[in-house]
Amino acid sequence: METITLEQVSRLLFEKDNFLILMHKSPDGDAVGSGYALCMALRSMGKKADTLCGDPIPEMYRYFTDCVPDQGVDPEYIISVDLATTNLLCGKAAEYKDRVDLCIDHHGSNTGYAKAGYVDGTISSCAEIIKYLFDVMQIEIDKNMANAIFTGICTDTGCFKYSSVSPQTHRTAADLMELGADSAYICHLMFDSKSKSKIMLEKFVLETLEFFSGGKVAFVLITKSMMEQSGALECDTDGISSMPRQIEGVKIGITMREKDGGEYRFSVRTSDEIDASAICKNFGGGGHKAAAGCSMHKSMKEAKDEMLKVCISMLEEMV
Amino acid sequence: METITLEQVSRLLFEKDNFLILMHKSPDGDAVGSGYALCMALRSMGKKADTLCGDPIPEMYRYFTDCVPDQGVDPEYIISVDLATTNLLCGKAAEYKDRVDLCIDHHGSNTGYAKAGYVDGTISSCAEIIKYLFDVMQIEIDKNMANAIFTGICTDTGCFKYSSVSPQTHRTAADLMELGADSAYICHLMFDSKSKSKIMLEKFVLETLEFFSGGKVAFVLITKSMMEQSGALECDTDGISSMPRQIEGVKIGITMREKDGGEYRFSVRTSDEIDASAICKNFGGGGHKAAAGCSMHKSMKEAKDEMLKVCISMLEEMV
Repeated sequence: METITLEQVSRLLFEKDNFLILMHKSPDGDAVGSGYALCMALRSMGKKADTLCGDPIPEMYRYFTDCVPDQGVDPEYIISVDLATTNLLCGKAAEYKDRVDLCIDHHGSNTGYAKAGYVDGTISSCAEIIKYLFDVMQIEIDKNMANAIFTGICTDTGCFKYSSVSPQTHRTAADLMELGADSAYICHLMFDSKSKSKIMLEKFVLETLEFFSGGKVAFVLITKSMMEQSGALECDTDGISSMPRQIEGVKIGITMREKDGGEYRFSVRTSDEIDASAICKNFGGGGHKAAAGCSMHKSMKEAKDEMLKVCISMLEEMV
Repeated sequence: METITLEQVSRLLFEKDNFLILMHKSPDGDAVGSGYALCMALRSMGKKADTLCGDPIPEMYRYFTDCVPDQGVDPEYIISVDLATTNLLCGKAAEYKDRVDLCIDHHGSNTGYAKAGYVDGTISSCAEIIKYLFDVMQIEIDKNMANAIFTGICTDTGCFKYSSVSPQTHRTAADLMELGADSAYICHLMFDSKSKSKIMLEKFVLETLEFFSGGKVAFVLITKSMMEQSGALECDTDGISSMPRQIEGVKIGITMREKDGGEYRFSVRTSDEIDASAICKNFGGGGHKAAAGCSMHKSMKEAKDEMLKVCISMLEEMV
């Protein structure tokens, strides 16, 4: 992949036409916000452009996606946004995986699958990069574009909470509000509303909460029957894995998830000096220092006991 | 109360000495952040200054309060921050309730109890005003002051979520980060950590969750025994009152709280067109359109049934 500057990206977008913008499967606010904002901008330049995602776009983004109906573009120039690897394309979008002309992304782990790309792993979100690109291109950002970009930034930063947020991220949010972004409405929609099935799943999971090592280890279980009874979706389990570790005094948070075929999947979150990936390595898994995962094919009791044994002995070693 | 400008506030602070800064009871991030930032600034000018709150300062603010040990100042000039009314002073702080010389606040409902005051109800937080004041005073803001002010802004805006956030709020956050505020650390501490007792209370409360009117009404109960068993504090119930309304499709969220002497206290949160204060008026209570409260002296069952009857009939009228 040829690494290019935002000025070069801008030139390519002015030159080309009939764009198709690809978004990853299970699209999140950053993918949808970046993809739709770019599509709106290209159309505002008189170009033809469509977005494509193999999965349906979640309802919650309709306040800015509704104004970008499909134009049935015959694609000539393929762009990906917020896409670290083409493995994350699904459905119709996957058909373009070897044809990506331009990639705009903020994942340091980007595999370089495109002909040309602008990738900056230090920026909070792909949407923040899109805003800087629009500044270079002197795009007149309207309310819908501002809403799309704001959504990407706020969802990928946990509402300005993460360490990826820079002073420039906040200044960009300020600019977008002045361009019409409905900041409070978007934040409410993205962060203050929960599906009934997610809250039912939380209820079931909290009933399994146990503490070990004097409160330094917190453990929760998600069974298949909890998923069925609550009607929860895969994405509803996201927040749950981080919950046990968020409890005051907890150093190791364990979420054990029952999967098909007698498999138990563990998500381990740690704080401070504890290495989650070292814990998971004992069971053939891996990940990062603060968040890692692994899988076991054992009985529920055996799997749980083995994981706890490793965690507890790791804590004892630290003392 | 004489309404004065930030320039006049600045002049008073340069003229006077031996300051005492009062904070309200159950101090939150904005009270503590504003009070301690102002105290640090006054000391940096070579003045004597102390803070005073009738309640203990919560542990979670120690990362910036630890550097402001009490100086045993003999107070001559009394300042209040983030204090809408002197009814919110308690303990030793209440002794100064008729002696407040200067008030700096962002509550539109400020009762004007001070000799002079700067009150702007359109600003997100008192801490944001403190930052503007420091700019006027040309205070050299150090890392501790930046952390204190950032804490006030982010806690009073639900981490930049509320409609009180302006573009200037985000720009102020950006400035504070550049002055050394540990944005990600603060947000993690304020929003991503929960006490064990709060999570136990959530577990008990979720077990009582019921839906009515086809999912448009959500109801939860907090009993005295749940409070005892979980060891939860009063402040742990804050987030719970907003939980039922946050569930998708819910128009009226009801939290019923068992108090002493056979009293049941209701917190009603609504969305869209539904008037929470009209619901609570039926029982002698009141509040705002989206959040109101009332109290009943009845059996648990009667109190619950009467509240639900009013809510359900209000929803039926809307159809």
